[in-house]
Amino acid sequence: MRGKQDRPVDQAGLRKANLALILDLLRTRGRQSRAQLAGLSNLSKATVSNLVAELEIRDLVRPAGIVAGRQGRPGMLVEVQPRTVCGIGLEVNVDYLAATAIDLTGEVIHESRVPLDVIALGPERCLDELAKLATDVLSTVEKQGAWTAGITIAVPGLIDPVTGVVQLAPNLRWRQVPMADGLAGRIGYSLAGIVVDNDANLAALAEQTTGSVVGVTDLLYITGAAGIGGGIIADGVPLRGAFGSAGEVGHIAMDPGGLYCPCGSRGCWETQVGLIALLRAVSTHEDPVRDPSLDLEQRLTIIRTRAERGDRRTLDALQQIGSALGIGLSILVNVLNPAVVVLGGYFATLQEWLIEPARREVAARVLGPEAAGARLVPSQLGFSAGSRGGAHAAMRRVLDDPTLAPVQKAEATEAPA
Amino acid sequence: MRGKQDRPVDQAGLRKANLALILDLLRTRGRQSRAQLAGLSNLSKATVSNLVAELEIRDLVRPAGIVAGRQGRPGMLVEVQPRTVCGIGLEVNVDYLAATAIDLTGEVIHESRVPLDVIALGPERCLDELAKLATDVLSTVEKQGAWTAGITIAVPGLIDPVTGVVQLAPNLRWRQVPMADGLAGRIGYSLAGIVVDNDANLAALAEQTTGSVVGVTDLLYITGAAGIGGGIIADGVPLRGAFGSAGEVGHIAMDPGGLYCPCGSRGCWETQVGLIALLRAVSTHEDPVRDPSLDLEQRLTIIRTRAERGDRRTLDALQQIGSALGIGLSILVNVLNPAVVVLGGYFATLQEWLIEPARREVAARVLGPEAAGARLVPSQLGFSAGSRGGAHAAMRRVLDDPTLAPVQKAEATEAPA
Repeated sequence: MRGKQDRPVDQAGLRKANLALILDLLRTRGRQSRAQLAGLSNLSKATVSNLVAELEIRDLVRPAGIVAGRQGRPGMLVEVQPRTVCGIGLEVNVDYLAATAIDLTGEVIHESRVPLDVIALGPERCLDELAKLATDVLSTVEKQGAWTAGITIAVPGLIDPVTGVVQLAPNLRWRQVPMADGLAGRIGYSLAGIVVDNDANLAALAEQTTGSVVGVTDLLYITGAAGIGGGIIADGVPLRGAFGSAGEVGHIAMDPGGLYCPCGSRGCWETQVGLIALLRAVSTHEDPVRDPSLDLEQRLTIIRTRAERGDRRTLDALQQIGSALGIGLSILVNVLNPAVVVLGGYFATLQEWLIEPARREVAARVLGPEAAGARLVPSQLGFSAGSRGGAHAAMRRVLDDPTLAPVQKAEATEAPA
Repeated sequence: MRGKQDRPVDQAGLRKANLALILDLLRTRGRQSRAQLAGLSNLSKATVSNLVAELEIRDLVRPAGIVAGRQGRPGMLVEVQPRTVCGIGLEVNVDYLAATAIDLTGEVIHESRVPLDVIALGPERCLDELAKLATDVLSTVEKQGAWTAGITIAVPGLIDPVTGVVQLAPNLRWRQVPMADGLAGRIGYSLAGIVVDNDANLAALAEQTTGSVVGVTDLLYITGAAGIGGGIIADGVPLRGAFGSAGEVGHIAMDPGGLYCPCGSRGCWETQVGLIALLRAVSTHEDPVRDPSLDLEQRLTIIRTRAERGDRRTLDALQQIGSALGIGLSILVNVLNPAVVVLGGYFATLQEWLIEPARREVAARVLGPEAAGARLVPSQLGFSAGSRGGAHAAMRRVLDDPTLAPVQKAEATEAPA
């Protein structure tokens, strides 16, 4: 049995891989001359010129001025083309829908969030609302004259990646919802271009691509919302498991005699550190932070303010949740040995009070010195990490196979010999 | 950031990858004609003939008779060559050293185990004993006229894969032991050919290559000895983590107020389901099963016999350990979503009593129907899984790059045009 890095390689596959390599070098390192690209890629300059020409006619790269070469001969620079290709990410969560569009340079060209009681609406009407949001984003992208590489939808639950069906999303109370098909039908977009994925997986991708941990190959992203999910990137590649349900960290058994969880089990980590556990621990019944009609960010601001003022109950609750967070994280670090654990959602909003107690537990419970090298950091993408990751995933289709982008120009700019 | 499947590919790399592909097809599918190999690999028949010729002069494959071709023209079959190349695996564990040598066909051409009190001996004298064992195996291999691809040593602990230093092996009481260097010096073998790896990682590789789960791309192997370790294979590739310490599942926090663990923490899974926990649970102080001078397999046989006779204490203890095993496994399955969990060591020896209670907990606690598809199976490789895996890992060097094998013949058998 051999792993994925050993796929058979033919000439067409080699060309696609090399186009992808050149595009990736330009995307991650900025403008380069063909000679520089040849050096970075170990390809001949003639091959590179040929590859760049193909990327140019597909509107993926463009000329970017002239630089002095090594023997004083001028080299023409090339860079990725902004606003010609877009990836669109959508997110469905318990109390909001979100949308993000990015272009090849990674620039966010659209971002929006709509508060919504998704549980009350149910899947069909939620899809109606999502279709409106998607239509808005598509029209923004079209006005730029850009081509849409694809749409990826982030959902907190178990997804069948092949059919785009949400199999089980306990916090949304959804089972077997044909998400990709439902959206494709409503907006008249090709079903082949719509992918559904787990929100934590996509948030991990967003962090790795644009967040504070760009380039880290082994990372774990933890969502901090009603549900607690894990997005795992191992050796640079998302870890999905045999049937796509890896990262269900909210349901690891922390206390077999503990509270009942919506999943049907008891004492799941989510019952200790999920948003509901936080709201319970910091407040009594009539407290406004438990008022579901208030926006989540508002409620978290109330909690922050109390903590800043030194409110004992709030501080004790945050300390206790931080420790429970750390005990669970120590398990994940022992199993996965990530270089970085990114804490998303409310963990990031309340980082000043949660991260230190969590770090203490991780340091005490992980085998190996200094938590086996794992750093805990708060996400800087806030609650938009899911849709942001969706946009990157959609863009990745064309990054992995640049020949998907339509030919836009008859011929490319001539490169010097 | 891109993952490992996107490494730049040049012509020399392509040739190595294609040599590896042809060798792998012959190893996993048995004898094939060049035309069949061309069909399986998507390479041209001329390219395949050329690749096979190179494998032949390196003694990796040989002619294997004639088969009728599609248009009635005869095709010459080719197959991997037995007993010309060997991989050697060694294992150091708490109470034994072990050695295995395999050839390219996967045949075990040497296997031995030496009972030894490794803690009492300490690293230096243990290395002396390991060197004797290695010298024996090397001489067996040499007598066959075979070339040794490499030596891989399995150790239950945290390893620095680059330097071959055992950083921390709590159950051996070892810290910072330069294992690869120590063995290379003692036996006069090239340091570049000696690798040290975690025992559970190597056992997982053995299971995936020769055990009951050949071809499963997402699997988790759990050692059942003094230490509990996890070997993770995700999407066909070993998961090692950022610094090589992934899979330290014995130290996941199951009960923060529980027993103290040799690692310094409390309530680790190992304190609930490790071999010491088993021996404590099934016996009182003077019981022979706690006698360290008896071989481990003998002691496990005593426990088996008692369970078969219906001894209440034994059955209750096994039930309780099976449940604790299942609760820990449910965590790992929620995080990793493996297709198969292989239970090694004493878990396999006592499978009739441990696996059912473990399965019940996993079924109840894993999100998704039917434990998200995960099957629990006992290992069939017993306590030799580590050294067996070491032999496969050593062999993998030449499977990944067949040009490492020395040229043995001036020219290859002529293939029909």
